[in-house]
Amino acid sequence: MLTTNPFDDDTLHEECGVFAIYGHAEAAALTALGLHALQHRGQEAAGIAAFDGKTFNVQRALGHVGDNFSSQEVIGRLKGHAAIGHTRYATTGDVVLRNVQPLFAELSVGGFALAHNGNLTNNQKLRRRLVERGSIFQSTTDTEVVVHLIATSLNNTVVDRMIDALRQVEGAYSCVAMLDDAIIGVRDPNGVRPLCLGKLGDVYILASETCALDIIGADFVRDIEPGELVIIDKDGLHSRHPFPRAQRRFCIFEHIYFARPDSVVEGTSVYEARKHIGAELARESHVDADIVIPVPDSGVPAALGYANEAGIPFELGIIRNHYVGRTFIEPTDQIRHLGVRLKHNANRANIAGKRVILVDDSIVRGTTSVKIVAMMRAAGAREVHMRIASPPTTHSCFYGVNTPERNKLLAAQMDIEEMNDFIGSDSLAFVSIDGLYRAMGKRSRNTSDDQGYCDACFTGDYPISLTDHDNGSGATVSRLAESA
Amino acid sequence: MLTTNPFDDDTLHEECGVFAIYGHAEAAALTALGLHALQHRGQEAAGIAAFDGKTFNVQRALGHVGDNFSSQEVIGRLKGHAAIGHTRYATTGDVVLRNVQPLFAELSVGGFALAHNGNLTNNQKLRRRLVERGSIFQSTTDTEVVVHLIATSLNNTVVDRMIDALRQVEGAYSCVAMLDDAIIGVRDPNGVRPLCLGKLGDVYILASETCALDIIGADFVRDIEPGELVIIDKDGLHSRHPFPRAQRRFCIFEHIYFARPDSVVEGTSVYEARKHIGAELARESHVDADIVIPVPDSGVPAALGYANEAGIPFELGIIRNHYVGRTFIEPTDQIRHLGVRLKHNANRANIAGKRVILVDDSIVRGTTSVKIVAMMRAAGAREVHMRIASPPTTHSCFYGVNTPERNKLLAAQMDIEEMNDFIGSDSLAFVSIDGLYRAMGKRSRNTSDDQGYCDACFTGDYPISLTDHDNGSGATVSRLAESA
Amino acid sequence: MLTTNPFDDDTLHEECGVFAIYGHAEAAALTALGLHALQHRGQEAAGIAAFDGKTFNVQRALGHVGDNFSSQEVIGRLKGHAAIGHTRYATTGDVVLRNVQPLFAELSVGGFALAHNGNLTNNQKLRRRLVERGSIFQSTTDTEVVVHLIATSLNNTVVDRMIDALRQVEGAYSCVAMLDDAIIGVRDPNGVRPLCLGKLGDVYILASETCALDIIGADFVRDIEPGELVIIDKDGLHSRHPFPRAQRRFCIFEHIYFARPDSVVEGTSVYEARKHIGAELARESHVDADIVIPVPDSGVPAALGYANEAGIPFELGIIRNHYVGRTFIEPTDQIRHLGVRLKHNANRANIAGKRVILVDDSIVRGTTSVKIVAMMRAAGAREVHMRIASPPTTHSCFYGVNTPERNKLLAAQMDIEEMNDFIGSDSLAFVSIDGLYRAMGKRSRNTSDDQGYCDACFTGDYPISLTDHDNGSGATVSRLAESA
Amino acid sequence: MLTTNPFDDDTLHEECGVFAIYGHAEAAALTALGLHALQHRGQEAAGIAAFDGKTFNVQRALGHVGDNFSSQEVIGRLKGHAAIGHTRYATTGDVVLRNVQPLFAELSVGGFALAHNGNLTNNQKLRRRLVERGSIFQSTTDTEVVVHLIATSLNNTVVDRMIDALRQVEGAYSCVAMLDDAIIGVRDPNGVRPLCLGKLGDVYILASETCALDIIGADFVRDIEPGELVIIDKDGLHSRHPFPRAQRRFCIFEHIYFARPDSVVEGTSVYEARKHIGAELARESHVDADIVIPVPDSGVPAALGYANEAGIPFELGIIRNHYVGRTFIEPTDQIRHLGVRLKHNANRANIAGKRVILVDDSIVRGTTSVKIVAMMRAAGAREVHMRIASPPTTHSCFYGVNTPERNKLLAAQMDIEEMNDFIGSDSLAFVSIDGLYRAMGKRSRNTSDDQGYCDACFTGDYPISLTDHDNGSGATVSRLAESA
Repeated sequence: MLTTNPFDDDTLHEECGVFAIYGHAEAAALTALGLHALQHRGQEAAGIAAFDGKTFNVQRALGHVGDNFSSQEVIGRLKGHAAIGHTRYATTGDVVLRNVQPLFAELSVGGFALAHNGNLTNNQKLRRRLVERGSIFQSTTDTEVVVHLIATSLNNTVVDRMIDALRQVEGAYSCVAMLDDAIIGVRDPNGVRPLCLGKLGDVYILASETCALDIIGADFVRDIEPGELVIIDKDGLHSRHPFPRAQRRFCIFEHIYFARPDSVVEGTSVYEARKHIGAELARESHVDADIVIPVPDSGVPAALGYANEAGIPFELGIIRNHYVGRTFIEPTDQIRHLGVRLKHNANRANIAGKRVILVDDSIVRGTTSVKIVAMMRAAGAREVHMRIASPPTTHSCFYGVNTPERNKLLAAQMDIEEMNDFIGSDSLAFVSIDGLYRAMGKRSRNTSDDQGYCDACFTGDYPISLTDHDNGSGATVSRLAESA
Repeated sequence: MLTTNPFDDDTLHEECGVFAIYGHAEAAALTALGLHALQHRGQEAAGIAAFDGKTFNVQRALGHVGDNFSSQEVIGRLKGHAAIGHTRYATTGDVVLRNVQPLFAELSVGGFALAHNGNLTNNQKLRRRLVERGSIFQSTTDTEVVVHLIATSLNNTVVDRMIDALRQVEGAYSCVAMLDDAIIGVRDPNGVRPLCLGKLGDVYILASETCALDIIGADFVRDIEPGELVIIDKDGLHSRHPFPRAQRRFCIFEHIYFARPDSVVEGTSVYEARKHIGAELARESHVDADIVIPVPDSGVPAALGYANEAGIPFELGIIRNHYVGRTFIEPTDQIRHLGVRLKHNANRANIAGKRVILVDDSIVRGTTSVKIVAMMRAAGAREVHMRIASPPTTHSCFYGVNTPERNKLLAAQMDIEEMNDFIGSDSLAFVSIDGLYRAMGKRSRNTSDDQGYCDACFTGDYPISLTDHDNGSGATVSRLAESA
Repeated sequence: MLTTNPFDDDTLHEECGVFAIYGHAEAAALTALGLHALQHRGQEAAGIAAFDGKTFNVQRALGHVGDNFSSQEVIGRLKGHAAIGHTRYATTGDVVLRNVQPLFAELSVGGFALAHNGNLTNNQKLRRRLVERGSIFQSTTDTEVVVHLIATSLNNTVVDRMIDALRQVEGAYSCVAMLDDAIIGVRDPNGVRPLCLGKLGDVYILASETCALDIIGADFVRDIEPGELVIIDKDGLHSRHPFPRAQRRFCIFEHIYFARPDSVVEGTSVYEARKHIGAELARESHVDADIVIPVPDSGVPAALGYANEAGIPFELGIIRNHYVGRTFIEPTDQIRHLGVRLKHNANRANIAGKRVILVDDSIVRGTTSVKIVAMMRAAGAREVHMRIASPPTTHSCFYGVNTPERNKLLAAQMDIEEMNDFIGSDSLAFVSIDGLYRAMGKRSRNTSDDQGYCDACFTGDYPISLTDHDNGSGATVSRLAESA
Repeated sequence: MLTTNPFDDDTLHEECGVFAIYGHAEAAALTALGLHALQHRGQEAAGIAAFDGKTFNVQRALGHVGDNFSSQEVIGRLKGHAAIGHTRYATTGDVVLRNVQPLFAELSVGGFALAHNGNLTNNQKLRRRLVERGSIFQSTTDTEVVVHLIATSLNNTVVDRMIDALRQVEGAYSCVAMLDDAIIGVRDPNGVRPLCLGKLGDVYILASETCALDIIGADFVRDIEPGELVIIDKDGLHSRHPFPRAQRRFCIFEHIYFARPDSVVEGTSVYEARKHIGAELARESHVDADIVIPVPDSGVPAALGYANEAGIPFELGIIRNHYVGRTFIEPTDQIRHLGVRLKHNANRANIAGKRVILVDDSIVRGTTSVKIVAMMRAAGAREVHMRIASPPTTHSCFYGVNTPERNKLLAAQMDIEEMNDFIGSDSLAFVSIDGLYRAMGKRSRNTSDDQGYCDACFTGDYPISLTDHDNGSGATVSRLAESA
């Protein structure tokens, strides 16, 4: 079976997007729109919880937001003036409904719904402890650990219990939660994942990215700060900083690939950042060529930056088929690289006989790069030079990004020359780590601990302890297999 | 909208059937067959859990067993040599998947799956206490209380924890459970709901009724005793009696209506019991007539008993349409009693001009009786005499049967003469409570506490305390509304 | 895979039921109800066409009437004051939507919709002729031949074209049709299939059986006569007899098995006819026994007739599971005769130790009889005597009943003693052909040509020529395979 | 309800794509891939017919190719070494399965399947004539007229009948057909719609565009000529020119919008043609500005051509959401232009304060242009200049493109200044008709009849007679309404 997403199979996957709104008569409809704008952060499942003053109305579904949260019937059931939503990319094979967020629990102190972007690194250790004292887990998500910590906390209010719970967890998280009378937004002390605050008239909104504010016409107010917890209720917004202060370590891959180019995260336009990286790349690894071609669609801004800096024409040399079916039967009679062609086709007329620079955002396993270089050559390219708008990805992420294990990462196995041979390009270059930081407006990567970004996937410098990993706990194990 | 089940709307509903098997390579396939034979005990949902030595494979679905557990794909996923199953009739509107059994929990001492027939009468009280100590409930079923009591028990083994849990609950239950290395069957001390033991070769089976043994060709061994807990593992069957001894109070309505006529429960053939009740009824309330007609299908054995005893010909005066669709649009241009005709039609040729005795098993709201008497008259019956093979149903059940509230029970509102007028029959008679006990082989209802049956729906004599009801706790309240 | 219809697999299948109504604001809703009452005549597909003065609104679907024609949405689309409907059992594997009736054609002289019960015996010959002159067939049904004959007829009105077309066809048919301003009902000159006329207030109705009148509260007026064509329009009913007079040859199997017991066809109550056959059978083939047990459900009236005549108690010795799923996985670990048990179970308590008379309506392949006799013995029956309420079925039907080929008919291969051995019964008897006619109120089968019934399946005396069969044309061949 | 395709609602729609292959063991799988590449030519339905030497295996479905023709099950049923396929955009509301192509007919001279891109202009006249002589139409497509003309032709072979039929039709058509032993490709004498010939090894392929050859790795051989009919059978390719010679009138809108940019049609790269149009536009209507922004995605090549020629930076100022759901509930609390934002968002960071040139391919109703100009201003654009890469669309198409009626076309109602006011842009310019021809490599539009293109939508110069339209026949009328 061939999918029409052959390139996506060889990219990293963000695990989640979150959205919350308080005090709007159409909270669920706006949340559905916000999640649609955040669909790129997770396509496997989505959920919305709305509170109407009496009932927590929840709908969760596998699949895209637009396929499950667009009907009058569904939105009509999600009554309430407050809502939170979640869009999810699963890290494991457990794509089952009980793992889809928001999670909900009726606590003795009130109702509680939670949606989480990030990944906890001491999840296993906490889970074992909770099961021993009688907690029953329904999902295999790390998020459920937080809910049980809250349920069993001895504090008197949900907010105090939530702070109590989060003080026990390690890892990256940007969460939104909904209580009987408020919504909450919170970021981990390092601020690894994004979370921003917006306003539509008097109504506050929390969202992973600003593009979710744009779609509903809301104004961007500010980013939630690392370690900040905001409570939004009928009296407005209340900010707390209940965690010990820590270094700012925002995920730099959000700029390189995850975030939408029309979003502004941590004060920087994603589109502009990518153009700057492309320009740095052009400066660092010039090559004579006739045209610059982006690998669609994520490579486009970096390719524009490259082409402008290098003074080489930018062309759409790869045309994308917008009608994305899921899979096709592969003819057994071999057609080379058919998989790639389901979604992309070389624009033969402007490639034949040309020296081509291909610009892509990153290389993970390298399988796609092999196919696309071959596609260029089949279309008659005279030379193919691959330029990558990020440093070599050599380490796995444990903070909310689905990365292959290290031995599947091409750059962890080969040096650049070996990679060039593997991919079949005439030359291959990555932007340097310092070039990347220059593109972000720094002079270079600060060798002190204060560089501002988490770049562990390029450097192995993990800012948050990896408790489960170091203990060999691996992924959450459940002995329950249920398909519904 | 008109359903093709107009008569069923006016009957009592059994809430559940359970099945378990240990040590068979095709445990899930046999469980699916057993549940199909128990379908009459609950048609809204069904579930099977199988254990393959490593994983608890669970499938739960809304709808009939045959619609959800008959494909190779589903049964193939339910790998394992042990399995338990459940078929469910929901008491409330919460027909949602998370309420469908078996429930499963991964405990610190092993996996645990549970299926329950019956109803707990102190469920609310226990639930509140558990939430206060941090337990998170996923369903609104009383069954989940048992699972949380087990999870939080301080005992060391699952079996000891289960006994600990059941000692705290009040109410009626016949449960089957599955552990890592055994299945368990248990009945409450009064033995309100049935549970029997069968054997297929060396393989033990537990089932609500013997008809579930017949379908797989298994032999009936014996009933599980009131208050008995059996453990079936690789060493065979182990019996324990961990609860204080109590009076035997088997639900007499199982004989009147719930159990299948080909089942033998508590030592008595259901079919023969019904014929005996019909014969008692004929003796107690003779009337001159030309034909005896059963209200199909549950009234047939009693009508045969009546006809034989009275010496009046038995005729199928009401023909059933076997193709049961769900609902039909009702023409606004009124057709009287159309609803009844979707499923039944008067056999006009043998009714016209006759004096008819109609035999039915019970009267709940009386709405069906009105329609069926009218149908007889429209078909030309000269006289219509209604005979009911149970005493007047005057009280609600709290032990696992879905009964309307008392003010909806016709016999709680009217005396027999008023009911006769309401129904439109020429005469109406119920079997007496003593007649009922005579049909069961007793001399009369024992006024001591030792009558052997729970007959609270006829007498208001409730053998088990009604803690939640007395405290006004009503049904389990959840503020979560989720449709999936 | 095991179906829950194991007995039905070994019965004959009626191919169709038809219904029509003119002049009622809720024509389609009433047609859906009528088809529901006729569901036993065809369960594979159904269709309704309604005319609203401008548009022929048609809905056709595979499956039961109740599953496809009960929603407000569907009935709401079927606007119109006139409607015709059809319920279908397919003779071949071509269960595809384009074969589902009513068929519709926009002719140069107006719209025309047709629904047909029966089978044409010169279909192939006519079809070949039509294709040669340029007609394009969309279905493989013989019914479409009639539509093309009408389309290409040179007559000026639809009615005259229809008569022209039907004069060219041979075979059995009871048809209803709908034009721009009328509905039509017509029976072939021999009157093989039933068709009756009813009235609901001033509104005329046509239906295959009276049970379809009962469900909507309509009165039975009369049967449509063999060879009669009635036109129902705004001026009322007009009767014509456009075909040469022929002998009355009503299908006697309608009385034995096809028609519903609450229907009155050709002036006779089906239920009473079956009881009479049972009584004849008891007189012809008495045997000492303890109980008479019907094979449910079609054997019940004959068994009652038998039991009354023989003075032996009638008992429900086989209990039917009303929850009919489609199929189940068969455990490979053999369970003997599991298939039978999916739908039926021996009522062991009243069989063990008894001499049993089993009464069934007919024997086709005999496979079911083998299983049910074995089921009786497994339940402890001391003797099992099989009594069949029809003569041996020795010939195939070509007039609208799906019969196996002759070499699959048990009675065409064996004499009664061999059949008794094959089935495993202690004795086997069929009602005689003269006994059957006596039960129908005749003195015996008339050896002249005037016996009034078609009994070809018992006698091989085919009243209508078998043109295609004699020419070896076999079934309609199409080279188109389309699943939708 | 809001769709995520707000821009598409305001574009013209191509009606069909066709594909055919002969002599390949996996004909259907390759056809599915080819249709996937042609999905942009019709998204409402698709169908494939394959011939295996005995049976014409057909599958037709509403929806995308990838959703319906990608499973092993479906492709496995489409057995055969020859196949034809069709992807369809319906012109009317009749999106029903019986209108989906390929159409199939079993003729007296063999089987015949047909798929058609284009539109016949004397369809109504021919249809009336055919119905009068007894043809029964199953669909409302003009394509069925061709099938009936073939069925009723007196010629002896299917090919001769097809030529006979096509000589009677007027309009635009590029058809592929499949017979018992061959496939056929044919273009109307003016060659309005494209059709090209490819080869995969020895296997011939016919397809609407070259991108359908690329996806399966086939080589482009040549375009089928206007008026040419090719027969591909076991002996190879045979070319005939059975129609009177006519002027070449290829649809120029294929270059402007319909065809995929990676296709080469009629000898010209679509991508290059669009860049040339963009460059002409820049030369004709220069304006000082800071950035050139394409309206995605069809405006990209023209915008690149414009930006290069004008020397103004090209930027992705509008970001597209790739996750296209169908519809969303529109919050009643008005959010201006939400519809547009479901699919696109302004890249605020590079628009704010800038003078923007927006480049789009065409203006139909103008509703989208209004929204997108407003989106630019909301993002802070200082000036917004709209440039359109085609002349004003002033006339409807009758040759296979779904155009609104003239009174809905903005350019038919307003002059350019009025349009500029309506859209809200600071300036508006279209490429001139001569500029368009220059971009296509001509000196100007030839005022003789020999300009080579059909440009009726810009000029009203219709090259083929509009028989039905001139007779006021309107669309095909059917009185049948069936939803399945």
